[in-house]
Amino acid sequence: MAKKNAFYAQSGGVTATLNTTACAVIETARRHKSKIGKVYAGRDGIIGALTEDLIDTSKESAATIRALRYTPGGAFGSCRYKLKGLEENRAQYERLIEVFKAHDIGYFFYNGGNDSADTSYKVSQIAQKLGYPLICIGIPKTVDNDLALTDCCPGFGSVAKYVATSIREAGYDVASMARTSTRVFILEVMGRHAGWITAACGLAAEQEGDAPHLLLFPEIPFDQDRFLAKVGEIVKQHGYCAIGVSEGLRRPDGKFVSESGLRDAFGHAQLGGVAPLIAQLVRDQLKLKYHWAVADYLQRSARHIASKTDALQSYAVGKAAVELAVKGRSGVMPIIVRKSSKPYQWTIGVAELKDIANAEKIMPRDYITEDGFHITAKCRQYLEPLVRGEDYPPYRNGLPAYVKLKNLAVPKKLNTEFKI
Amino acid sequence: MAKKNAFYAQSGGVTATLNTTACAVIETARRHKSKIGKVYAGRDGIIGALTEDLIDTSKESAATIRALRYTPGGAFGSCRYKLKGLEENRAQYERLIEVFKAHDIGYFFYNGGNDSADTSYKVSQIAQKLGYPLICIGIPKTVDNDLALTDCCPGFGSVAKYVATSIREAGYDVASMARTSTRVFILEVMGRHAGWITAACGLAAEQEGDAPHLLLFPEIPFDQDRFLAKVGEIVKQHGYCAIGVSEGLRRPDGKFVSESGLRDAFGHAQLGGVAPLIAQLVRDQLKLKYHWAVADYLQRSARHIASKTDALQSYAVGKAAVELAVKGRSGVMPIIVRKSSKPYQWTIGVAELKDIANAEKIMPRDYITEDGFHITAKCRQYLEPLVRGEDYPPYRNGLPAYVKLKNLAVPKKLNTEFKI
Repeated sequence: MAKKNAFYAQSGGVTATLNTTACAVIETARRHKSKIGKVYAGRDGIIGALTEDLIDTSKESAATIRALRYTPGGAFGSCRYKLKGLEENRAQYERLIEVFKAHDIGYFFYNGGNDSADTSYKVSQIAQKLGYPLICIGIPKTVDNDLALTDCCPGFGSVAKYVATSIREAGYDVASMARTSTRVFILEVMGRHAGWITAACGLAAEQEGDAPHLLLFPEIPFDQDRFLAKVGEIVKQHGYCAIGVSEGLRRPDGKFVSESGLRDAFGHAQLGGVAPLIAQLVRDQLKLKYHWAVADYLQRSARHIASKTDALQSYAVGKAAVELAVKGRSGVMPIIVRKSSKPYQWTIGVAELKDIANAEKIMPRDYITEDGFHITAKCRQYLEPLVRGEDYPPYRNGLPAYVKLKNLAVPKKLNTEFKI
Repeated sequence: MAKKNAFYAQSGGVTATLNTTACAVIETARRHKSKIGKVYAGRDGIIGALTEDLIDTSKESAATIRALRYTPGGAFGSCRYKLKGLEENRAQYERLIEVFKAHDIGYFFYNGGNDSADTSYKVSQIAQKLGYPLICIGIPKTVDNDLALTDCCPGFGSVAKYVATSIREAGYDVASMARTSTRVFILEVMGRHAGWITAACGLAAEQEGDAPHLLLFPEIPFDQDRFLAKVGEIVKQHGYCAIGVSEGLRRPDGKFVSESGLRDAFGHAQLGGVAPLIAQLVRDQLKLKYHWAVADYLQRSARHIASKTDALQSYAVGKAAVELAVKGRSGVMPIIVRKSSKPYQWTIGVAELKDIANAEKIMPRDYITEDGFHITAKCRQYLEPLVRGEDYPPYRNGLPAYVKLKNLAVPKKLNTEFKI
């Protein structure tokens, strides 16, 4: 293929290491100048492509791009915009190709989760049908760790490290004062459908009695009586109880616990916040003093405590994506392959987008203890390598020195507007 | 004074660097073997002294005591037990002296906030009255940063670094997706009576447009209409708005905002959680998508991102306390004296406990901007040196390697029980 420009877009919820992948894509593309011209990024993800709102990354210095490696969030903007089925909304796909053609784009890199793998796959199909030469590469990313085929997802290891560290630290706090103060501490974490992040909290409990003592997974229907009995037991035995709970905890009837409780003064249901509900239950039924925390975006943006393993893998998938592209591979995604757990060894493999699109990796039941309240040794063995190593960002004036890009627009070439 | 044992107790809410001070006290005492015998710690603070439940720190190795330097919480246990007035409850004070006498304790180190300074002062008075030779030293500690005379309080700088880092990181996250998703992010932080921690969030906003855009201080009565108008303006200008709010935010009538809103299905008021209330207001009145986080204990136990300045100062006050004691000084507290802000220079000074006891350092009004929604340059100049430098703990298996002590009890010598 003659030298062509590349298009890169970030998709879905951002992570602590999404920009690490962006850095890798841009740095690697700059090393393949004979095949790749400029890297254009979509402003706010795929919306940028549809609206022809492209960012010229060539306007950013090497030092700025390098600084992206340590900056959380999505530097070009991301969105949760899902392209519909090919037949349902062919105009959208054709518009993408039209924009790519106008800007001489021959490479499409889409960095996201399940939906994005699906979109990349469909774009590769439509390009073929329309006879437009386009190399389509998906790049994995999601804190939810639910992508199929890859052993783990870039972004997950850092959230895992953050939640495990946080609940360990809070555990030390609570243990110090439990005799006369707080007995039960609850940390709410993300993961609406899969308990990977909740499971990661469990890494902090290395020895008998360590926090967290109890985990509430979205996979295990919430049994109030068994939960309360267990909390009572733990407090009796250890003096306090630290709990990690998924925002996606469900009642036996399948409804989210977070949607079923608190109402404001006007009777409106409170959205989000399962931790305060669990806390109230503990107070009302067990008469124990509690505290609760909701980590929310803090957990997925905590670049200051990113996992080194995660940072290396996030970089590696970005680099591999570009290397696959210049070799002419299309319709694929670089994935992380675990070669062994002890010692931990991994490498980059390649999977077909069609095999990843819309599949979901769920937590195996044998990663959760039989009683449903903690992780098993097998789960620990899977998770532990993913949080290993620190990858500290640079600091300035005592705070992490993150970068903001200029994000200069590529002049438009089409005169058409496109409503999204 | 002949060689005597020392008693050390931790008091009140724990911090990320309270054990750093404990480490300094024990390490320094071990270097003064001619004057100080063993260091006994109170199990769960002053309660340990009253109930003759003393911990023998000499049973811990030098390596373990060193590891305390990097461990959050209160390693010997803490409590919020406040001794009453001397005349009101003379029996308690006499009991303390009785326990000290039984264990040959000639040094009393009390590590806490305002109440603790008051208690230390009263203990020194009663010892004098009873003719018992006791050197009483207060050691400052509080995340609230509200102790008089000392320029800042050990423990505060690390919370400050944590909240500023967290809201900066969450700001990068929200900025990435604001166009199609969350527009308003709210982080709730501690500080029920003083806005020092809320102010520290403001450090993250170094340039126009940086998060946080808006701070809600406990010192400034919450004006709902002005707040909503301001949020609307900020979202219009920057696309999103990141807010730091104190748990102690009050309505114009003086009531806590957190006590005035949510009720559970049974009509019980929800305790704590001002962030979700502010979030609902934003949703109901401005129709903007929001997210909120409550940092709770995470902020004061986050040893993984402790401030180096804070860690050094926390160690320095513990060391100075012992050095003052062996020189025969009593009724005093080592404090942090700022010699200059640019460059930041500090030293350890000495203050009289009677001047610190029950005084309170409030946020100067000129540390808050005139509109009440942010910090001034003067505030930034005060705060910025306190978060400087990193002081990373060691890691094991990807998580901070914190230590747990054996906490072996000193055999009791009194046959009396004491009800607390």
